[in-house]
Amino acid sequence: MSDINKPDKDGEPMTNAKVSRRRLLAGGAALGGLVAGSTAARAAGTPDPLITEIQDWNRYLGDGVDSRPYGTPSEFESHVVRRDVAWLTADSKSSVNFTPLHELDGIITPNGLCFERHHGGIAEINPADHRLMIHGLVDKPLVFTMEDLKRFPRENRVYFLECAANSGMEWRGAQLNGCQYTHGMVHNVMYTGVQLKHLLNEAGLKPNAKWLLPEGADASAMTRSVPLEKALDDCLVAFKMNGEALRPEQGYPVRLVVPGWEGNMWVKWLRRIEVGDEPWHHREETSKYTDLLANGTARRFTWEMDVKSVITNPSPQAPITHGRGQTVITGLAWSGAGKISRVDVTIDGGRNWHAARVDGPSLSKSLHRFYFDFDWDGSELLIQSRAMDEHGNVQPTKEMLRSVRGENSIYHNNGIQTWHVRGDGSAENVEIS
Amino acid sequence: MSDINKPDKDGEPMTNAKVSRRRLLAGGAALGGLVAGSTAARAAGTPDPLITEIQDWNRYLGDGVDSRPYGTPSEFESHVVRRDVAWLTADSKSSVNFTPLHELDGIITPNGLCFERHHGGIAEINPADHRLMIHGLVDKPLVFTMEDLKRFPRENRVYFLECAANSGMEWRGAQLNGCQYTHGMVHNVMYTGVQLKHLLNEAGLKPNAKWLLPEGADASAMTRSVPLEKALDDCLVAFKMNGEALRPEQGYPVRLVVPGWEGNMWVKWLRRIEVGDEPWHHREETSKYTDLLANGTARRFTWEMDVKSVITNPSPQAPITHGRGQTVITGLAWSGAGKISRVDVTIDGGRNWHAARVDGPSLSKSLHRFYFDFDWDGSELLIQSRAMDEHGNVQPTKEMLRSVRGENSIYHNNGIQTWHVRGDGSAENVEIS
Repeated sequence: MSDINKPDKDGEPMTNAKVSRRRLLAGGAALGGLVAGSTAARAAGTPDPLITEIQDWNRYLGDGVDSRPYGTPSEFESHVVRRDVAWLTADSKSSVNFTPLHELDGIITPNGLCFERHHGGIAEINPADHRLMIHGLVDKPLVFTMEDLKRFPRENRVYFLECAANSGMEWRGAQLNGCQYTHGMVHNVMYTGVQLKHLLNEAGLKPNAKWLLPEGADASAMTRSVPLEKALDDCLVAFKMNGEALRPEQGYPVRLVVPGWEGNMWVKWLRRIEVGDEPWHHREETSKYTDLLANGTARRFTWEMDVKSVITNPSPQAPITHGRGQTVITGLAWSGAGKISRVDVTIDGGRNWHAARVDGPSLSKSLHRFYFDFDWDGSELLIQSRAMDEHGNVQPTKEMLRSVRGENSIYHNNGIQTWHVRGDGSAENVEIS
Repeated sequence: MSDINKPDKDGEPMTNAKVSRRRLLAGGAALGGLVAGSTAARAAGTPDPLITEIQDWNRYLGDGVDSRPYGTPSEFESHVVRRDVAWLTADSKSSVNFTPLHELDGIITPNGLCFERHHGGIAEINPADHRLMIHGLVDKPLVFTMEDLKRFPRENRVYFLECAANSGMEWRGAQLNGCQYTHGMVHNVMYTGVQLKHLLNEAGLKPNAKWLLPEGADASAMTRSVPLEKALDDCLVAFKMNGEALRPEQGYPVRLVVPGWEGNMWVKWLRRIEVGDEPWHHREETSKYTDLLANGTARRFTWEMDVKSVITNPSPQAPITHGRGQTVITGLAWSGAGKISRVDVTIDGGRNWHAARVDGPSLSKSLHRFYFDFDWDGSELLIQSRAMDEHGNVQPTKEMLRSVRGENSIYHNNGIQTWHVRGDGSAENVEIS
C-alpha cells in the first residue's frame, strides 16, 4: 500500500537502486555548463563538445530482440503504477486502485495501468473451460464457449469506463492530493467483441423480455439489472482490450461493455445473462450504487456517467518543475452521453475561461485529451477545466451539485476540480467558493 | 529462439506447467455433456445443472488490487509473444522479432507486443541525462532536455510503423508459415509528441535548409536523410506510445515519428538532428533500404509504404478449429498514403471477390481492421485480401510486383498474400498463379 501524501514527481524519474555501468559512466557532469533559459530550449554555443558529452550511450551494444518476448516499461518508469489507498477499504480483495492519470497522455490507457475494482478478488479462469449462458425469457437457452463467441460478427470501439464512485471522496470538500486518487477510477480502451444483440437474437427473446441480469464468475458473483434497450443498442460482449486478450483483472476471458454507463455494470468474468421482465433489485443497485439525497430519498438507476473533466498536469503529483515561461496544461474530458464538444480552462479560479485545444480522435463515450498552452509568469494559479458534450450538457461546480443533491452522496460526482499551483510549481487539491 | 515450424494454435491455449488448485477442482468434466452443434452456440436443455457446473470459479477469493501495480497478461496467454527467427540473422543485437498479428484484434498493438528491429541492441537511456540537439543550417543551434520538449504543443496520432523489409522473404515465393513471420514487422500505436516543425522553428531554419539527418543514441548511431518537406508536414518527436512512456526497445525516451514512411527512418533514441542542404547518402540509404532491380540499377528514397493487407485469421498459426458453419475471416490493411477506402476478400483464390467490412476508427496512415463473415462448408479454401486506399492505390499480386521489379528486392513487398485452408481447418502459406 502506498502513502498518498508522498506523490512521485512527474518529469523527475525516481532514482533506482539498480544502477547500470553505462549510467555510472555517463555521470552527472553532462551538460552541466548549460544555462536554463526562459524559453523551452537551451542555446548550444558550440555543438561539437555537446555531441561528445551526449554520445556515451552508443558505446555499448544493448540487449537483443530475444531479451523480452513480452515487453515491459523502462526501469526509469517504475513509479508509473496503479496505486491503492490502504485506509480506504478493509481488504484488498474488495477494493480499488487508481490509474496514474498524471503520468499518461493521449487517450488510450495502457492495459497494465487500467484501474481495478474488485468485490471478491480477481477470478482466475481458464478460457478453455469458461462458458457464457443465456437463459430466462428466451426461446432457446444457450451456452457459449469462448470459441463460439468468436464466430459472431465483431466490432471495435474505444470507450471510457468510469467507476460511479470516482471522485466520490470529494463530495464533502478537497480530500485527496492527486488526480490519480481524485479521478483515477477511469480508463479508456479499444474493445473487440460481439454485439450482445447478436447473442440475444440467437437465443430468441420472448415478447415480455425487458431486463437482463448479467452475472460474473468471480467470488462476488456480481450482478446488475440492465434494461433491454441498452443491451440492444450498443452493449458488447468483449474478449480483447487494446488489441490483446482482456487482462485477468479486467474480466478475462470475457466481460460486458456498457458504453457510457457506470463501471459496475460492465460485468467482468461474464458467465451468465438471465433475461427477465423486471429489474432484480440486487445488492449493487439498492444498498450500493444509489444516491441518497438530503431529504432521505435515493436516486436509483442513475446509470449514465455525466459530462466531466480533470486537469492531469500540473496537479499535486505532477508539479511544474521547469520554472516560468512556456507551459502546457493538459487533461481529460468525457461524457456518457456522447462526444465532447468543448473544454474550457481557467488559470485564475474561474474569472476568465479560455477554450482548450482538444487533440486526438474524438470518439463517442471515449476520453478526450485537451491542452492549454500558455506563458506562466510564475504567479500563483487556481486551475480548473470545464467540459461540455455534444448534447449541451455542461460540467457543474461542486457547489451546484451539493445544492441539488446534498452531501450524502458517494457516486456521480462530476464537479469541477480545482488545483492551486504555487509560485514554486507545486500543486494542491483545494476548493474555492 | 523459436521454431517457426511449430506454431501455436489460436483458440487452444497452451497447457501451462503451473496448474492452480482452482483449475484442478474445475476439472475436465465441466459441460462434457454438451453436444457441439453446427451453429455457433449450444442449446442448454436444462439451465440449472449448467449453472452448477460452471460456477466453480466463484468459490474462491482472488488476488486483490495490490497484487500487480503494473498488470501483466493471463498465464493462459503466455504463447502470445513476439518471436524471432534464429537463422535469419547472425546476432540478436542486430536482428528483428515479429508482432503476433494472428493473436490480436482491433487496430491498437499493445506496447509489449510491438515488433523490434535493432541495429546495435536496445540503448539503455536515463531520460534525465538525455539531450536532443538541433544544429547545422539553423540560426541558433539548440539542445533540448526531455522536460524542454514537453513544453511545446503536443499532438496525439495513431500511425502504423512498418519495416521496409516486412514480407521481404516472400519475394521468391512462399517461405514462412505464419502471418506473424510474413507480415509481423508492423505495429500500430497512438503517439504523443511535439510536431518537429515547432522545434525546427525554434532553432530557425536557414534559407538553404533542405534535408535533415536524425541520429539515434544507440550503438548503431542510426542515421537517415529526411527531406525537409516531410519534417514540416507531419513528423513528430514522440515521447509516449499508447498513453505511457515509449518502451526502451521503441526508442525511450524519445523517437522520431515519420507517418506512412518506412520504419527505419523513425529514428529511435533520438539525440541529434542535423540540418543540411542535400542528403547524406549514409549506409542505411545506399547499401541498405534501396531496391535492386533486374537491370542492375536500384530504386532509392522509396520512403512511402505501399497499400497492403493480410488475413490474420485463419492463417497457418491460427487454423479454424470449430468445424464448418459460421466463420469469421479477419485481417489488417494499411497504406502510407492515407486511409483505406476498401478491402476485398476472396475464398476461392481470386475467382470471386467480396467486399469486406472495415470496422473501428478509420485513421490516416493507421492500420484498419477488416472482417468477412461467411458460412464455411468445410471445403478447401484459397483465401486472400486486397486493399485499396483513398487515393485509388490498389494492392498488387506478387506476380505483378516481380514482373516490374524482378526478384532481387528485399524491401517494399506489398503483394497479395494467399493462405491455403484445408478441410481440417489447418492453413499453409502458398502461391497461386
